[in-house]
Amino acid sequence: MSEKISVIVWNEYRHEQENPAIAAIYPTGMHATLAAALRETASPLPGARALDLGTATLDEPEHGLSAARLDACDVLLWWGHKAHAEVSDAVVERVQRRVLEGMGLIVLHSGHFSKIFRRLMGTHCSLKWREADEKERLWVVEPSHPIAAGLPEHFELPYEEMYGERFDIPTPDELVLLSWFEGGELFRSGCCWQRGHGRVFYFRPGHEAYPTYHDANVQRVIANAVQWAAPRVRLADRCPNTAPLEALSPKSLSFGRVGMLQEQGDIA
Amino acid sequence: MSEKISVIVWNEYRHEQENPAIAAIYPTGMHATLAAALRETASPLPGARALDLGTATLDEPEHGLSAARLDACDVLLWWGHKAHAEVSDAVVERVQRRVLEGMGLIVLHSGHFSKIFRRLMGTHCSLKWREADEKERLWVVEPSHPIAAGLPEHFELPYEEMYGERFDIPTPDELVLLSWFEGGELFRSGCCWQRGHGRVFYFRPGHEAYPTYHDANVQRVIANAVQWAAPRVRLADRCPNTAPLEALSPKSLSFGRVGMLQEQGDIA
Amino acid sequence: MSEKISVIVWNEYRHEQENPAIAAIYPTGMHATLAAALRETASPLPGARALDLGTATLDEPEHGLSAARLDACDVLLWWGHKAHAEVSDAVVERVQRRVLEGMGLIVLHSGHFSKIFRRLMGTHCSLKWREADEKERLWVVEPSHPIAAGLPEHFELPYEEMYGERFDIPTPDELVLLSWFEGGELFRSGCCWQRGHGRVFYFRPGHEAYPTYHDANVQRVIANAVQWAAPRVRLADRCPNTAPLEALSPKSLSFGRVGMLQEQGDIA
Amino acid sequence: MSEKISVIVWNEYRHEQENPAIAAIYPTGMHATLAAALRETASPLPGARALDLGTATLDEPEHGLSAARLDACDVLLWWGHKAHAEVSDAVVERVQRRVLEGMGLIVLHSGHFSKIFRRLMGTHCSLKWREADEKERLWVVEPSHPIAAGLPEHFELPYEEMYGERFDIPTPDELVLLSWFEGGELFRSGCCWQRGHGRVFYFRPGHEAYPTYHDANVQRVIANAVQWAAPRVRLADRCPNTAPLEALSPKSLSFGRVGMLQEQGDIA
Repeated sequence: MSEKISVIVWNEYRHEQENPAIAAIYPTGMHATLAAALRETASPLPGARALDLGTATLDEPEHGLSAARLDACDVLLWWGHKAHAEVSDAVVERVQRRVLEGMGLIVLHSGHFSKIFRRLMGTHCSLKWREADEKERLWVVEPSHPIAAGLPEHFELPYEEMYGERFDIPTPDELVLLSWFEGGELFRSGCCWQRGHGRVFYFRPGHEAYPTYHDANVQRVIANAVQWAAPRVRLADRCPNTAPLEALSPKSLSFGRVGMLQEQGDIA
Repeated sequence: MSEKISVIVWNEYRHEQENPAIAAIYPTGMHATLAAALRETASPLPGARALDLGTATLDEPEHGLSAARLDACDVLLWWGHKAHAEVSDAVVERVQRRVLEGMGLIVLHSGHFSKIFRRLMGTHCSLKWREADEKERLWVVEPSHPIAAGLPEHFELPYEEMYGERFDIPTPDELVLLSWFEGGELFRSGCCWQRGHGRVFYFRPGHEAYPTYHDANVQRVIANAVQWAAPRVRLADRCPNTAPLEALSPKSLSFGRVGMLQEQGDIA
Repeated sequence: MSEKISVIVWNEYRHEQENPAIAAIYPTGMHATLAAALRETASPLPGARALDLGTATLDEPEHGLSAARLDACDVLLWWGHKAHAEVSDAVVERVQRRVLEGMGLIVLHSGHFSKIFRRLMGTHCSLKWREADEKERLWVVEPSHPIAAGLPEHFELPYEEMYGERFDIPTPDELVLLSWFEGGELFRSGCCWQRGHGRVFYFRPGHEAYPTYHDANVQRVIANAVQWAAPRVRLADRCPNTAPLEALSPKSLSFGRVGMLQEQGDIA
Repeated sequence: MSEKISVIVWNEYRHEQENPAIAAIYPTGMHATLAAALRETASPLPGARALDLGTATLDEPEHGLSAARLDACDVLLWWGHKAHAEVSDAVVERVQRRVLEGMGLIVLHSGHFSKIFRRLMGTHCSLKWREADEKERLWVVEPSHPIAAGLPEHFELPYEEMYGERFDIPTPDELVLLSWFEGGELFRSGCCWQRGHGRVFYFRPGHEAYPTYHDANVQRVIANAVQWAAPRVRLADRCPNTAPLEALSPKSLSFGRVGMLQEQGDIA
């Protein structure tokens, strides 16, 4: 493990190139905004480490996630929305293997439907939704969790897309944030899981049509999540045939396993 | 939901046809032994329901798991070992969708490496292993769990394959059984998860070369697990766009979202 | 275990006797309303059992919870508010021991601060609160959970006291219901835990000044919870000194344990 | 939070003063051995902090745990065995309050029956046991957990007291270590919980008659646990009455809550 945490911010990067209103919010892409925010957000966590930041986007070769880059990556952030199907299964497989080895993964907003998130969860990851420029208020349920470090009891986003329950996910190992929506719904917005040796964090806010990733509290959550998700180990998959650690008692299978079964009266 | 629980015992059914020693233990296949055992094992659970039992095997058309059969199935048992790769992805997808809708799934022994189990877990599901005719002792960790109903504090299998930790699975929602092995290892042997609306139980014992599925305690565990895994609901996947339940406050976005951002001083 | 589930509805029963406005809502006490509701609410759960219903109140001898009554009780409901301190520690100890043996406990609303709930949780069980006649909307997060059987996706209570996060509880084993409040807060409203061999359910609604326990959905939740919390086993506490199950290898401690330590070079 | 982690090693300190064989293993008490080990064990965790170490024992005034000392304590270790009943309830209450505020607590071996552990768990914390000089092998179930940093896949203690399941605890949030015993039992040996804002770790080994706390792997586990359990926040208990964050809709309760009930047809 290097001294710095090596981070890749991955972005689909289509909305920003196709829609001027969205380009106005994220002129160089959400990935650039997020990388800049991570560069500038000092984590209040004791022992917080510096970051080595890079970005990657869908339309780069191998989506910018070559085996070599992923191999050196400690924490991967993932934003995707309308082109989930264009992400190659080979790259998804590669990312999954790295998570199971210990790499951290932070899935943002509409990334709930990404191939990688659904594959790690094993579920559909569906939810209710609505685009109505409505207020979201995020409540901190576990103020002692590293991802909540430095946050107030709650914070607001004046305009966001609504996501509502039931969110089809396995019960989170830790539930850090819950969202209240003006229109009457609520949502498990900050959810932690371990998969293999890696940590996965899902963070709800971040609809492309709003300046959510410019929000200081949102940036704080993501900066904390990077520290939390940094690998603790790196262990490749193994399924070893191993010798006994204790002497086994001598067995009398001379009459064969069928004999054993006959002896028990289970078969004739 | 019908009155009876509709059960399919799925078996790869290759070892029994290729290896006379294994055929001697399971002359008509493990699936037949398991179905007969389920037919005869009265569940000690209050409110236990009768079973409607069927079997299916790899070499039947669609592996015996047509859409119509799966549609009517409440609980599916799965034993596979050397032909996991031959199970078609379309059938795996179909089984997964049924589990997420509410169908129960009981994965047996070497089924830890089946496509369906790995897909629902999101992990490699690797482990340590050894074939050495050694003793396994299963300890009941949660005697109040329905799957443990009627079991003694521990029970033994005189000869089994060893599986050892670390078992690469998400932390079980409930850990019912732990195995002690003569050779010095231990294992999380009875593990429960919920995925979508369905329940998943992994049960370790059942190497094909031993008469494990003739054991009364093993049969009891599986009979209980069928009761536990029976569907509570059946809900198809949805991701609906929904109207607000509360009146939203009037918004002033006339200056556009970029204007909002400018107002906040986030962009020039 | 008897055929019927033996239920005691425990109520502090002070507000109803002291405050005419509350007496108008619950003329014979909340316990009577709840017992009547349980008598009349058919559970949609498969295998649901009939109930044998009784009540108990604070001012009865031993709070109506003699050792004999508790001994025969399967599921205890608990509503208390302003007289938690008057509940005797001996009775609390008795209830705790029965829960750990397998009895179910359903803690209602202001019972979050009861001695028995705090003792089983090990935490303060504090929360935010407000009495402002505001709307509560309860969302079903786990529609497959037995406690959610027959419920719609969400249901509303037009007037309730608000409880807000952070609710100081151990992370629930299962989170069934979440509440949205008109005033901007949210709350983990239907929470399940296992303690010892018993099941504990906390259910938020039920401020004495509103007719909450006359609501059909609230009654449905409580009726389902009784079925869910019914004992699966009854096991008294034991801490046995046990003989080995396997032959231990001969030990050479003739030089004493200090010798062992010296040999390892750990002490001189 | 100070730069260093402030640690108190608490020990009953009776066996060492009463039994020469035990005094030979721990001449100045287990607390002294543990404190020295913590002083010398460099943690392999990234961001590991230095320790400020102190000790406390049962027979000191207030058991060495005055309000002022506890107030300044970040992580408390607890070893007790035969004098649990002599620990004053006032001190237990004080420790619990500090844990709920964020202080870490590491409970060792026979501390499973301490007042503080039972109070935080809400259960009996019983188990099976045997003193027979037998081998214990501890398996790392979660190698990516901070408490497992630097450990091999398994490690052995040549002579230990046996503890066996069922261990009467709430399901751990994280299960890091499992023990295999020569005599045929197994045990959940390294268990993590959160209670309030504090972290609790139970670690099984440490019978007074063996030199367990001189073992390098045992010392490593405890050193890691201190880092893991260090407070992330300090938040005193509150149960505030709070004003609404959103404007509440005007209510028409002029006819009173009984009127509301009558309107609904629930009462006459």
